[in-house]
Amino acid sequence: MLCVGLDPDPTKMPVAFRECSDIEAVQDFCSAIGKAVAPFACAFKPNLAFFEALGPEGWHALKEVLDALPDDRLVILDAKRGDIGNTADKYAHAFYDKLGGDAITVAPYMGRDSITPFLQDEERCAFVLAATSNASAAEVQQLQVDGEPVYRRVARMAVDAGKEQPGTVGLVVGATKPEQLAELRVEFPQTPFLVPGIGAQGGNIDEVLLANASGPMLVNSSRSILYASGGTDYIEAAAASARALAIELSV
Amino acid sequence: MLCVGLDPDPTKMPVAFRECSDIEAVQDFCSAIGKAVAPFACAFKPNLAFFEALGPEGWHALKEVLDALPDDRLVILDAKRGDIGNTADKYAHAFYDKLGGDAITVAPYMGRDSITPFLQDEERCAFVLAATSNASAAEVQQLQVDGEPVYRRVARMAVDAGKEQPGTVGLVVGATKPEQLAELRVEFPQTPFLVPGIGAQGGNIDEVLLANASGPMLVNSSRSILYASGGTDYIEAAAASARALAIELSV
Repeated sequence: MLCVGLDPDPTKMPVAFRECSDIEAVQDFCSAIGKAVAPFACAFKPNLAFFEALGPEGWHALKEVLDALPDDRLVILDAKRGDIGNTADKYAHAFYDKLGGDAITVAPYMGRDSITPFLQDEERCAFVLAATSNASAAEVQQLQVDGEPVYRRVARMAVDAGKEQPGTVGLVVGATKPEQLAELRVEFPQTPFLVPGIGAQGGNIDEVLLANASGPMLVNSSRSILYASGGTDYIEAAAASARALAIELSV
Repeated sequence: MLCVGLDPDPTKMPVAFRECSDIEAVQDFCSAIGKAVAPFACAFKPNLAFFEALGPEGWHALKEVLDALPDDRLVILDAKRGDIGNTADKYAHAFYDKLGGDAITVAPYMGRDSITPFLQDEERCAFVLAATSNASAAEVQQLQVDGEPVYRRVARMAVDAGKEQPGTVGLVVGATKPEQLAELRVEFPQTPFLVPGIGAQGGNIDEVLLANASGPMLVNSSRSILYASGGTDYIEAAAASARALAIELSV
């Protein structure tokens, strides 16, 4: 169930990377982490912002990182794109065809026009933001519409958009609000959930497992694995952190 | 008031580009259009999807296109990014510092955490999606919360997020729903609006001008200028289309 988020921030990297250029550091760090945690993870989630922050070379670095990850692990491109039909088609092409991602995260504010272009390939999956783990999410997602929150309406719209292509729609549901996760799991027992917010963001694993019951779920952790140690033992520390989390998740 | 959207799609380009690689076509077409319409436009809005669809080389092409645009025109990077604090910081760095954009479009679903990182520089502006021009936007944006639509709540949140830094927040309001534009203009008389949806999407200029009253506004047109002609006269046709639109907007 473990998904390892790749949010490579040169300012947080172990001492071994202090002398490298940012591009080298990002590529080498991600590749090393990828190898170290692969035995414990079924998926990787590169966060596009950390690559784009490197400028135009960042997308090349991302491609290098993707090529170095084990072939049999899922790659979820955390891009949170959300735009209308013809533009969304271009994003789908960029992330599925050009980068070879298995899944992408999608923002729902523009309605289903911005989701359906990502559902054309039954081998791929769009994880649509429903209830996210950050504090200010409530300002939009918890607005009440006829007695229920916006995030439930959004989740229903997303799942409905994928009803002709089972398995192509998942939901992003933050670990920091297990009661929302439980509520969505009751309504959508078979929908894959991507659950960020464990670790640095404060989500509790036992609460998440209880809330999820037995639905399909990927639990993401980024910083607490990537930056488990800033010293020369960063590879062992990342592997140990991933292993511990994988064990907790499999109980 | 005219903003020209750069949505370079190799499959729609004039005959002169049929023999080029996609990267060359995108760069050369955008540069030619940029020069041709500059006398009539105060801003350009490159749509990131069309560059990302080219793969990792696409960001280099975007940088080349940006470098070739006239220095004294605003560049609004239509990226619709929307993510939490530390990730949004990285996007702000990517778009403001690395690409040199003057403004960016931002998606609001994750609340103000995803907006404020773009408001740290008073020379830059984040245009937050409020009421977009596409048909399915209503599924989220027009849900009713205590008797008013979600897009009004979102607009209020966005404007409030920027209240300490006047001029750093704008709103995206589609031309296809002039009644929504009028309503938002009454509530936010001084907020810059970015108005897409004129031309190919069916928005009516006179209705938009009437609805906007005298607020600050940029009206975007993309396809009807870029692809005004598929023949050898594409540069003259684009210029003529931009000129006609600029005249309509200045009446």
